[in-house]
Amino acid sequence: MSACPVAATAATDTATIEAPADAPLPVLGHDVRVPLVTGGEVPYAALDYAASAPALRRVWDDVAAYAPYYGSVHRGAGYLSQLSTDLFESSRADVAAFLGCRPTDQVVFTRSTTDSLNLLAAVVPAGTRVFVFETEHHASLLPWERREDVDVTYLDAPRTPGQAVRTLEEALAAREPYGPALVCVTGASNVTGELWPVRELAAAAHAHGARIVLDAAQLAPHHPVDVAELDVDWVAFSGHKLYAPFGAGVLAGRADWLQAGEPYLAGGGASRKVARRDGGGVDVEWHDTAARHEAGSPNVIGVYAIAAACKALTEAGFERLVAREQRLVETVRAGLAEVPGVKVLSLFGDDAPRVGVISFVVEGWNSSHFAAALSAEYGIGVRDGLFCAHPLVRTLLGDDSREAGECGAPDGAAGEGPQLNALRVSFGAGTPDEHVERFVTAVGELVRDGARWSYRTEGGRCVPA
Amino acid sequence: MSACPVAATAATDTATIEAPADAPLPVLGHDVRVPLVTGGEVPYAALDYAASAPALRRVWDDVAAYAPYYGSVHRGAGYLSQLSTDLFESSRADVAAFLGCRPTDQVVFTRSTTDSLNLLAAVVPAGTRVFVFETEHHASLLPWERREDVDVTYLDAPRTPGQAVRTLEEALAAREPYGPALVCVTGASNVTGELWPVRELAAAAHAHGARIVLDAAQLAPHHPVDVAELDVDWVAFSGHKLYAPFGAGVLAGRADWLQAGEPYLAGGGASRKVARRDGGGVDVEWHDTAARHEAGSPNVIGVYAIAAACKALTEAGFERLVAREQRLVETVRAGLAEVPGVKVLSLFGDDAPRVGVISFVVEGWNSSHFAAALSAEYGIGVRDGLFCAHPLVRTLLGDDSREAGECGAPDGAAGEGPQLNALRVSFGAGTPDEHVERFVTAVGELVRDGARWSYRTEGGRCVPA
Repeated sequence: MSACPVAATAATDTATIEAPADAPLPVLGHDVRVPLVTGGEVPYAALDYAASAPALRRVWDDVAAYAPYYGSVHRGAGYLSQLSTDLFESSRADVAAFLGCRPTDQVVFTRSTTDSLNLLAAVVPAGTRVFVFETEHHASLLPWERREDVDVTYLDAPRTPGQAVRTLEEALAAREPYGPALVCVTGASNVTGELWPVRELAAAAHAHGARIVLDAAQLAPHHPVDVAELDVDWVAFSGHKLYAPFGAGVLAGRADWLQAGEPYLAGGGASRKVARRDGGGVDVEWHDTAARHEAGSPNVIGVYAIAAACKALTEAGFERLVAREQRLVETVRAGLAEVPGVKVLSLFGDDAPRVGVISFVVEGWNSSHFAAALSAEYGIGVRDGLFCAHPLVRTLLGDDSREAGECGAPDGAAGEGPQLNALRVSFGAGTPDEHVERFVTAVGELVRDGARWSYRTEGGRCVPA
Repeated sequence: MSACPVAATAATDTATIEAPADAPLPVLGHDVRVPLVTGGEVPYAALDYAASAPALRRVWDDVAAYAPYYGSVHRGAGYLSQLSTDLFESSRADVAAFLGCRPTDQVVFTRSTTDSLNLLAAVVPAGTRVFVFETEHHASLLPWERREDVDVTYLDAPRTPGQAVRTLEEALAAREPYGPALVCVTGASNVTGELWPVRELAAAAHAHGARIVLDAAQLAPHHPVDVAELDVDWVAFSGHKLYAPFGAGVLAGRADWLQAGEPYLAGGGASRKVARRDGGGVDVEWHDTAARHEAGSPNVIGVYAIAAACKALTEAGFERLVAREQRLVETVRAGLAEVPGVKVLSLFGDDAPRVGVISFVVEGWNSSHFAAALSAEYGIGVRDGLFCAHPLVRTLLGDDSREAGECGAPDGAAGEGPQLNALRVSFGAGTPDEHVERFVTAVGELVRDGARWSYRTEGGRCVPA
């Protein structure tokens, strides 16, 4: 094995990801077969991308090529430490380029979107007012109220993008005192898949002297994000939704709050100098670069995987991927519209632009029962529940949830069910047409014919009896 | 690819890790060749295990076998989500078994030792007094003082294990008021490799009504750890030092403080129920299991990698690995003792038990210069600096550091150097004899003949000119 092949591997792999137009990108697990309760096996249809997407083959290949060269980052004198440090810092540059960051922005590597937003919440200056819509998922809804010196205003769910902008403008204008403020908004809903008017919300925030952080957990994997063009102050996303499931995430944006805030974790890597103080205590001089918030040995494999995913999506042609995903969105929506009793959840209506994340309920069915049948009888993996966005899903469900059938009802007959939840199907760059076609067929068959197997509740979930 | 092969793969791989007695365990990178400034290539000698160890081949194979089956943990209804959830939770059980945890202990997955100790620091009850020796590395030294409602007492470096115990006992006995207390102690020093008297310190802590957390970052990869037998309240370690460099770490131990403390991160996964409150705000019901501190999608690959490493070390026979490593320790110490001007850093003296982590200075050499020459002329990766344990290394260096030569001195001649630092060589289960033998030879040659190449300072480091 010769020295330093990592860059070369990444470059020569480019050819393999330039698939024919309209083909899915190669992902791990495309050939996994799963058993059905009704007998036999089928290829697994992974339709839970909004929770976690499979790894791109390109990401896996780059990680596998690098793994033998793994070394301590920022810490060693040896060849592999130097190589790993270069790879780590060039990955930071790759992510900045992918996000269209401004030259002065910092890219901090975290473990996930949740971690990124908790980090930002920790460095928000005291006295800041934070504005979030109740429609946010928990990662962007909950971190702010932990700060006792920060006030949080929760905004009602808007029913049009324009109403979202007006609601925000009114709330910002009405704040007392008219001091520092931060808006946190999701770019694409993890429940409805609908795109939020990020550019307009950013303009409204800035017009009212506020800053804005974009939660791009569901946006970045499905749609190009350009920080400078959107004019958002920060952006957060997770590797595991961006086809790079190796435990890393990103917070990128303005350096000032990050530099001024206390280091996120106390430890080596974040500290430049540490000395015992005469008379007790220790004096610490912290870094003011991204390293300030990256204490401990960095997850270089996770970070490199994210950079590899960014490059793979860019090189594949992100606009082509978007167009392909839109076709799959239309297939699913048109298919669900044909099935009686299926109601797709939406804030902004049928015409709203959206990514490949679609939630729905089926009249008379407990959603957990329906999801269990999709898995056990069709080899399809979706998600049921409230999607870590409880207030939004409850708002969208309204009274429909009360029609849910019980899990154990063998034919999905209507009844007063104990769970008030929904189903979500989600997909992306690695999804073949067959998966969404099988899903549409399965929904139709289950509604028309009922489940072919019996299910029971175990540990709060529906499972085959 | 058939369904659910992960467990089978792990089981059948066992044969491949049962290497001949006294052989190193197979690791990635063993066949990596690096260029020398003096011409040609050599196999890279990774002797910076204390910073990050290479991945065990078994860990990589298990991760590679699982990767196509990756799915969302705790969140999906599909087959791969269920499989991934089972794997995640069985990994938790595997880690508990590896650590000898009590049945009521919680195993929380974090990103690293630094993260684990920051988590524990966040849940320490208000009013607790924390006791740490100044000899701790920054991960275990710095997190405590961030809590304004916690007092930290820094203890002077002891010069024998017995003095460590007496120093702690006296400090605990003298505390005013005699209230709740926590001791944080490292099991094996990341500077000297010396073992600390953990069992005795735990007994002293408990005798004085204190709790104790063991920083096992350097201990767990080199020595069996048994939480119940040592009678420590918590233990923390990192995957990347335990041959599993995929971004995960562990905090394991008593559940009460973990259950009572605020969730480490606010977000999905940690929250059981979230609802908007009439009149503003949100009500959150948090989990009181390990999930309470694991918000966001878990790093299932990183966690599975740690479990795979735990199993691989156990199945290989940890006592055999310890005996082998001790032989390498003796080779290095005997070799360094033969070289004039080399001083090994030690708190507890020559006879102290230690793991494969040895720091030293070379009279007349700037340590960064020496490390650069080891890398560029011998293909050996060590670390130079203060090892994220500034107070300890300064204490150990005393006045010797003032003899350091300048980086640019072509023959390593004595001079007043700008850096006051040391060298560290470290190794473990994957290290072949040839690596430590080459290291000993290289140190002797450099001291006797000087460097064969010129070096200059660039970005605060010595590099070949």
